[in-house]
Amino acid sequence: MADTIHERLQALEDREAIGNLIASYGPMADSGDAQAVAALWTSDGVYAVDGFPEARGHAAIAALIEGPVHRDLMSDGCAHVLSPPVITLAGDQATALCHSIVFRKTGAGWDTVRVAANNWQFVRTSEGWRAARRDNALLDGRAAARTLLAISGSVPRQS
Amino acid sequence: MADTIHERLQALEDREAIGNLIASYGPMADSGDAQAVAALWTSDGVYAVDGFPEARGHAAIAALIEGPVHRDLMSDGCAHVLSPPVITLAGDQATALCHSIVFRKTGAGWDTVRVAANNWQFVRTSEGWRAARRDNALLDGRAAARTLLAISGSVPRQS
Amino acid sequence: MADTIHERLQALEDREAIGNLIASYGPMADSGDAQAVAALWTSDGVYAVDGFPEARGHAAIAALIEGPVHRDLMSDGCAHVLSPPVITLAGDQATALCHSIVFRKTGAGWDTVRVAANNWQFVRTSEGWRAARRDNALLDGRAAARTLLAISGSVPRQS
Repeated sequence: MADTIHERLQALEDREAIGNLIASYGPMADSGDAQAVAALWTSDGVYAVDGFPEARGHAAIAALIEGPVHRDLMSDGCAHVLSPPVITLAGDQATALCHSIVFRKTGAGWDTVRVAANNWQFVRTSEGWRAARRDNALLDGRAAARTLLAISGSVPRQS
Repeated sequence: MADTIHERLQALEDREAIGNLIASYGPMADSGDAQAVAALWTSDGVYAVDGFPEARGHAAIAALIEGPVHRDLMSDGCAHVLSPPVITLAGDQATALCHSIVFRKTGAGWDTVRVAANNWQFVRTSEGWRAARRDNALLDGRAAARTLLAISGSVPRQS
Repeated sequence: MADTIHERLQALEDREAIGNLIASYGPMADSGDAQAVAALWTSDGVYAVDGFPEARGHAAIAALIEGPVHRDLMSDGCAHVLSPPVITLAGDQATALCHSIVFRKTGAGWDTVRVAANNWQFVRTSEGWRAARRDNALLDGRAAARTLLAISGSVPRQS
């Protein structure tokens, strides 16, 4: 009984931790905290952002936040908003799917300058859950983004 | 003691399952997986989308995703983003309120082409939680959407 | 063992309650339920919205929803969307960070008229979790919003 309870608690805590981690990305990015953003990934984690070279490891991921494209966005005013993720647990690994939207202050309001699909791969480490890989593709009609969002197994099909 | 723990775990798992189900809608819709979208509902579930005939049952709901309006959206590039829901559990039933926003690629950025109120009714089935009904109404100033978002009982009032 | 299980359940329930409370703001605001919005705060709670005088207490917070700015928004059609929050628990207190986006019906679609950073302070009361303070600052390039989103301690840094 206690084992089952422990397993059920652990699964809920795993989902909570992963959700919190994904929700942290936007506030960290929009406050320019490059080191905190990088620390969401494992030390050799990969962040593949559509339109940018693939970033591997903390220094490369931090450089995306410290670079001129992101600094210009912050200077104008921006929000990186990630939607509630669909999380699928598999022991010490997990996947999560979500949208990301980037708003940029332009004139009187904000323009929607990026709308993308995101597929995250997480691993449990001795320091907690970390991203091993995040793939990001713009939802601009190309197949790449649709492929990232394809769900296999997270909700049982009713045939 | 164990009974109480079981009930508390069950309530947390119910909320988690319902949240995951709602979060699945966008990725399934934007990847064009009509069968997966339909399977979020019970076999006689209803999806009443503002501006479209009411869809009842899996074939009718799948037809919304397979139809020309949705296919054109996907061809241009789109995201169906659902906000974090307010979930109220009542045994084997539950309600959830959230916003839905549809972004469509247009020119250099994305336009916000739909902003709607959503009121979901869920039931626990032998295969897990499924939507019995989703009502959707555009937030365009008419009363219908405001009525869908009215909360009764999810947060105790302080008088 | 039972104590540990109780504490873990309590932490999950605390996060769930706080997340549900934040998710309630939008539906309550967009349906014009000023009393329900106010009741999310403690009786002397503060809501500091960028561009408005600071509101303290239920009557002042309700007045924001009942006032002409919000009523005009609702008349045109609006959505107050709050992103998934990053929640940090500390016993009977908690903080949460999230974005808020306000969409307003304008012509054929919706304009993004506000994009803001939000820093919530919560306290556990005899009636459950309530907001003691919500600070809101527009993400328009000024430092105020970036400061609100700075995270300290919610995710351990990897050095």
